[in-house]
Amino acid sequence: MTQGTIFGVGLGPGDPELMSVRADRLVRGARHIAFFRKPGREGQARRIVNGMLAETATEFAMEYPITTEIPLKDPRYNAILSAFYADCAAHLAEMSGQGRNVVVLCEGDPFFYGSFMHLYTRLRDIAPVRVVPAITGMSGAWTATGTPITWGDDVLTVLMGTLPETELARRMADTDAVVVMKIGRNLDKIKRALRHSGLFDRAWLVEHAAMPNQTVTPLHETEDRVAPYFSIIVVHGQGRRP
Amino acid sequence: MTQGTIFGVGLGPGDPELMSVRADRLVRGARHIAFFRKPGREGQARRIVNGMLAETATEFAMEYPITTEIPLKDPRYNAILSAFYADCAAHLAEMSGQGRNVVVLCEGDPFFYGSFMHLYTRLRDIAPVRVVPAITGMSGAWTATGTPITWGDDVLTVLMGTLPETELARRMADTDAVVVMKIGRNLDKIKRALRHSGLFDRAWLVEHAAMPNQTVTPLHETEDRVAPYFSIIVVHGQGRRP
Repeated sequence: MTQGTIFGVGLGPGDPELMSVRADRLVRGARHIAFFRKPGREGQARRIVNGMLAETATEFAMEYPITTEIPLKDPRYNAILSAFYADCAAHLAEMSGQGRNVVVLCEGDPFFYGSFMHLYTRLRDIAPVRVVPAITGMSGAWTATGTPITWGDDVLTVLMGTLPETELARRMADTDAVVVMKIGRNLDKIKRALRHSGLFDRAWLVEHAAMPNQTVTPLHETEDRVAPYFSIIVVHGQGRRP
Repeated sequence: MTQGTIFGVGLGPGDPELMSVRADRLVRGARHIAFFRKPGREGQARRIVNGMLAETATEFAMEYPITTEIPLKDPRYNAILSAFYADCAAHLAEMSGQGRNVVVLCEGDPFFYGSFMHLYTRLRDIAPVRVVPAITGMSGAWTATGTPITWGDDVLTVLMGTLPETELARRMADTDAVVVMKIGRNLDKIKRALRHSGLFDRAWLVEHAAMPNQTVTPLHETEDRVAPYFSIIVVHGQGRRP
């Protein structure tokens, strides 16, 4: 029997109309889908495709065993997640072996800080895998601000809010445009780093980019807001513009 | 009369199937399109939508008066381009005033180092403008390499090949993942900077990402190749991967 293909399909920032034509076709035609989510949640990737799936499509929900319950630096964190990804990959490989194509729904772009990469590296040598790129969450965020992110020779630095404060501040002070992802409980630390680097007054917080509940707020007006993990901070470049 | 809307529509990296559902719909339904190109060329943006346009669609080709004939630092460069963008914007504003919607075709993502930004800033206060984000050329490039670009807390730095060599080398040596755009005649300089920063052996050159003539080559195997301006160099991050 011919092996089925595992498709890692980027869904983009959240608006179904911002999915690629190819992603739209694959999702609507899928007989089997898979997606990550927290236990007890619908899952953001699954929500984006609401109303697009065939009635007979089977769904494989891959539920993270942990998210923030164990600190990143705890060795158990890696061990637990590694076993989880191995289990998920084994299940997908089995489906492929049965000749089934599976569409794995991925928020944003699969190869850009995405969870799918952990399946991809475990599957690519044992099953046919294809990746469909997508509009990144950060593109959705800077488009939402109504201002271009980079001009001319601007340097863009993409930072994770999980980095140490001094590291964030140092890199923010040494670039033209900044995107910070993975905000959530890191927001206060990120704000301090932005103040330290002189970028605070130019920073914007974008929550739920490209979704009906999208908000775009100058960071200095966010006060004590708690931002969702998948919100994005943007500082626009100021480069050459004829 | 109601003003027409100017749509800045990102087309993505080049494969028409990687256009968003919204972009696809806008392009196919357009009665008026506009696009940049070099004089005497078809234009990359225009080529991507071949076969998608209504037969009756009008086309406004905006032909760059200069590209590399005058150095960037020559003050005439800015003056000539500025007048060009002002002319194009005036023409589009006039169409909008006549109640016409115009779809401006943009390679990649309009707000990410795109020429449309120069029209956008001239139009947004005088006409309705909407921007449709898209898959960036760099997403097309890293997907083409078959390897994820960033993991865990990786820092991604996006650099223009037009920057000075020492600046390129310094920044390459101080990041996890790198994307270099605007290659062309800067290729030798970029190679030296990558060697200096120790990243040369991990660098890939992607030409014509997501197009039928796509090539993906380890940079050290490119020898004396002349790379097209819109090729992209990618160095993948090595971050945390459970």
